[in-house]
Amino acid sequence: MTVSVIIREVGLRDGLQAETQFIPTEKKLALARALTEAGVTQIEATSFVSPRAIPQLRDAAELVGLLEQSPGVTYSALVVNERGARDALAAGITELQFVVSCSETHSQKNVRMSVAQSLAEAAVIASLAQENGVTMRTALATAFGCPYEGKIVYDRIYYLIDQLLETGTKRFSLGDTAGLGNPQQVSEICQQVLKRYPNVEFSLHLHDTRGLGLACVLAGVWGGIRVIESSIGGLGGCPFIPRATGNIATEDLVFMLEEMGVRTGLDQQKLLDAALIAEEMVGRELPSRHLALARNLHCNNNEL
Amino acid sequence: MTVSVIIREVGLRDGLQAETQFIPTEKKLALARALTEAGVTQIEATSFVSPRAIPQLRDAAELVGLLEQSPGVTYSALVVNERGARDALAAGITELQFVVSCSETHSQKNVRMSVAQSLAEAAVIASLAQENGVTMRTALATAFGCPYEGKIVYDRIYYLIDQLLETGTKRFSLGDTAGLGNPQQVSEICQQVLKRYPNVEFSLHLHDTRGLGLACVLAGVWGGIRVIESSIGGLGGCPFIPRATGNIATEDLVFMLEEMGVRTGLDQQKLLDAALIAEEMVGRELPSRHLALARNLHCNNNEL
Repeated sequence: MTVSVIIREVGLRDGLQAETQFIPTEKKLALARALTEAGVTQIEATSFVSPRAIPQLRDAAELVGLLEQSPGVTYSALVVNERGARDALAAGITELQFVVSCSETHSQKNVRMSVAQSLAEAAVIASLAQENGVTMRTALATAFGCPYEGKIVYDRIYYLIDQLLETGTKRFSLGDTAGLGNPQQVSEICQQVLKRYPNVEFSLHLHDTRGLGLACVLAGVWGGIRVIESSIGGLGGCPFIPRATGNIATEDLVFMLEEMGVRTGLDQQKLLDAALIAEEMVGRELPSRHLALARNLHCNNNEL
Repeated sequence: MTVSVIIREVGLRDGLQAETQFIPTEKKLALARALTEAGVTQIEATSFVSPRAIPQLRDAAELVGLLEQSPGVTYSALVVNERGARDALAAGITELQFVVSCSETHSQKNVRMSVAQSLAEAAVIASLAQENGVTMRTALATAFGCPYEGKIVYDRIYYLIDQLLETGTKRFSLGDTAGLGNPQQVSEICQQVLKRYPNVEFSLHLHDTRGLGLACVLAGVWGGIRVIESSIGGLGGCPFIPRATGNIATEDLVFMLEEMGVRTGLDQQKLLDAALIAEEMVGRELPSRHLALARNLHCNNNEL
């Protein structure tokens, strides 16, 4: 049986929010175009949050208005409250990406709301999504561990999913926000939630901070997950720290899956082209292994 | 059930043979000492091959003579023919690491012998090992693919193991010499050989060239492998190419396994100390993720 996995590209949102510079809207559009040309069908394009908090994404409404609509391509925007959701819908987004933290402390630090307040916002946003005929996803942040509270018990994750299912949302992302997960744990959590909620879609949003990103993806895919979130070029991480990696690089992930015979439907050469655009856009070397290999091939040729 | 994995450290051999410079013997000894202090019990220390072919390891006999003997620590040396084996035994080595390639072309390029000639040498070396009361391991090079011949069929691997078992050797290393393996394939090969040869010890020697190193290790450990070869700091790869990685870094591997609850018996802080010694020894940044994280923590502190 051939297994297929959908890649959800988050570089334009999760990657660029980690940048210190504002990337011009037209450059973001060029990257989005390169991604859809490589076959990417799910793109988290921006977030509708306070421009004071994340000035890098202050062009959210303009960007969404300019994104080229293609059949089968879904553009998503992160929102953390009703106001953001209304702004995103007004801009014409077709998927709302909401976030609830599994950890009370992280929730306060990340969105300045308690988990209960986030759940209340989720209900409002789910209604808005339904009224507007758009889909909604909810990321469960710190599901694999919180830098402040440590391990998250399974019952906490189940409780949040149960509460959110009541609002009508049926798509979830299990987020390893701080890159604390390990493959054994990822395998166990994925198997548990898929067994408990067989009709719910779960994606994995992992970080490669400690080098375990692809091993954790493998554990997730072998555990039954069929949607993986990643970032072109490995956009993200801390720009002040050389080689510090945050997100898993989309092209590295796709390479692993395709080598294993898992189909992604993406064109690896065109993904690398998109990664080069991302690298040029931020003006520094990105942590992607396949960008490094491409550079090295180039060096070798020069040395011949 | 707690799973334990033995780490076989190959940096002093596989790592240093990729260096362009000769590292003084006393520095190699310091690294070996740091490794045993971290709890490493299996160390591939050098190779007894032509000093013209690998001048970096031309001090093999001297190094082996000076290695500190500790209870439970086995020092191994790579040999590719009878002459090397005799030299290694004369120097006092207690384990001979032989290599047979699964690919005829790679065999010719690597050791200038046909696979049949290597098998004949294996029989002689196995007798020498037995006579001298030392153990012998045989690496099956290019088991996961050859850069010249492509995929290696399972029957080829079984044939070589069968031939080698007749010589009396009972320890094998499955080598991904060119870093061509993927986790699905590693999982399958490991499960197949362990099922077919239940009383034979197999280790995995993987390379991280394309970023799949730790994912492949995971596949191997979940497939039943209990000995993994790696290189402190990620020593190896091509020194001319920035960030080009060859071997899996021991400290990254141990971190993943311990996080998963797989026991290695090694002290992670002392492994990092050894990695710093390795880095200082070669005079450039090594590809280890945990060395990078340690550097970044340092940078962060400075920025406060």
